[in-house]
Amino acid sequence: MSEADTRKPVIVLVRPQLGENIGKAARAMLNFGLVEMRLVEPRDGWPNPAAGPAAAGADIVLNQAQVFATTAEAVADCAHVYATTVRKRGVTKPVVTPEQASQEIAAAQGRSAILFGPERSGLETEDVALARAILTVPINPEFGSLNLAQAVILCAYEWSKHEQLVQPTQEDLLPPAPQEDLDGLVAHLEGMLAPKGYFLPESRAEASRRTLRGVLTKPGWNHLEVRTLRGVLSSLARPPRD
Amino acid sequence: MSEADTRKPVIVLVRPQLGENIGKAARAMLNFGLVEMRLVEPRDGWPNPAAGPAAAGADIVLNQAQVFATTAEAVADCAHVYATTVRKRGVTKPVVTPEQASQEIAAAQGRSAILFGPERSGLETEDVALARAILTVPINPEFGSLNLAQAVILCAYEWSKHEQLVQPTQEDLLPPAPQEDLDGLVAHLEGMLAPKGYFLPESRAEASRRTLRGVLTKPGWNHLEVRTLRGVLSSLARPPRD
Repeated sequence: MSEADTRKPVIVLVRPQLGENIGKAARAMLNFGLVEMRLVEPRDGWPNPAAGPAAAGADIVLNQAQVFATTAEAVADCAHVYATTVRKRGVTKPVVTPEQASQEIAAAQGRSAILFGPERSGLETEDVALARAILTVPINPEFGSLNLAQAVILCAYEWSKHEQLVQPTQEDLLPPAPQEDLDGLVAHLEGMLAPKGYFLPESRAEASRRTLRGVLTKPGWNHLEVRTLRGVLSSLARPPRD
Repeated sequence: MSEADTRKPVIVLVRPQLGENIGKAARAMLNFGLVEMRLVEPRDGWPNPAAGPAAAGADIVLNQAQVFATTAEAVADCAHVYATTVRKRGVTKPVVTPEQASQEIAAAQGRSAILFGPERSGLETEDVALARAILTVPINPEFGSLNLAQAVILCAYEWSKHEQLVQPTQEDLLPPAPQEDLDGLVAHLEGMLAPKGYFLPESRAEASRRTLRGVLTKPGWNHLEVRTLRGVLSSLARPPRD
């Protein structure tokens, strides 16, 4: 993949239902130059014969689409993850418009990904938890009825406005570490906390994990910072020095 | 019609072919607050039973749609007419993006209209001749495949940026905790790390403290997040549960 292509956001369809909608999303993407689609648990498997006709010629997007078992795996190499949602949620993350997200993505170091949920239900809370920010299209409060391909096309369209811009260089600033580095940090900390009873009672465990994940996702630490924190955890796990 | 509504652009579908596409265009419009649709010579007459289901609830747009025999009649009351086209034409008119057109429309006195051509062929030269400007969506030169509803939604979306639609709110976002909260967190962690030899050798201690401080300052955690992390540290300091 060319360097130009790795600067483009990845479009991640999480548990999409209809092949036709996957095809329409591909068409919407390619109209504005986006080529990398990732699919998380497509309901009807992949490839899906209904996708091709709906793509109206955007076959290159479908042919290159990769399938993942989980959302976390789909964005493991991405430093900037946006979760699209129209609903208010009890998550304390920044909320951005497609315009703002596109500006951020265009200026970002490291790969970006935009998550789109299933047609009927949208993203689950644990998908949203992986994201640094919520991407919401400001819509008619009395009639919000964007379908999947429409949400994709608005994001792709906004992104395309920035494609020809000269990028600001931020060579001193390291990009946020890839998601898998952060996953490693989270797992390390959770592994140390579990024996201490931090995740008890069991009924609160999931919420505690989500909160912890959110606190550690917010900083956008780079790989050196993550390494420092891994060292901190290893030190804490050691017995005291004499 | 209210004054607010007469400031919104009229969406004119010229010789639309499929009722389904008229419905989809209505849905696209209402998502971004546009309500006035005009139809010029719809191929299958009007009303069209295929339009309703595709409108997904945007019935108000369809019910109020007016039918005209010619494009000229459809825009007779409009001072600013834009003709959408993706093709280069031998017409010497200004070419604007949806963004530029929306800015002009928002600032304009008098009614504005945006013309969209039939699905297969686009606007005829005589339709374009009625317009003051050509509206073209900047699109992938190697894959231009916008359908009617997609073209409508991009124009409606751009226009809506100039309206007072609901903006994403960040009411859940708390400000960063005061510095003394962060100081407390840093001191807590340092106090746990020192006995483990983390700050040894002594010659590296200052640099280690500075690095740690930097990593923990970067996030801008709020007071709840700092409290969560204090809880994490207290848990880590506890003996394991049985």
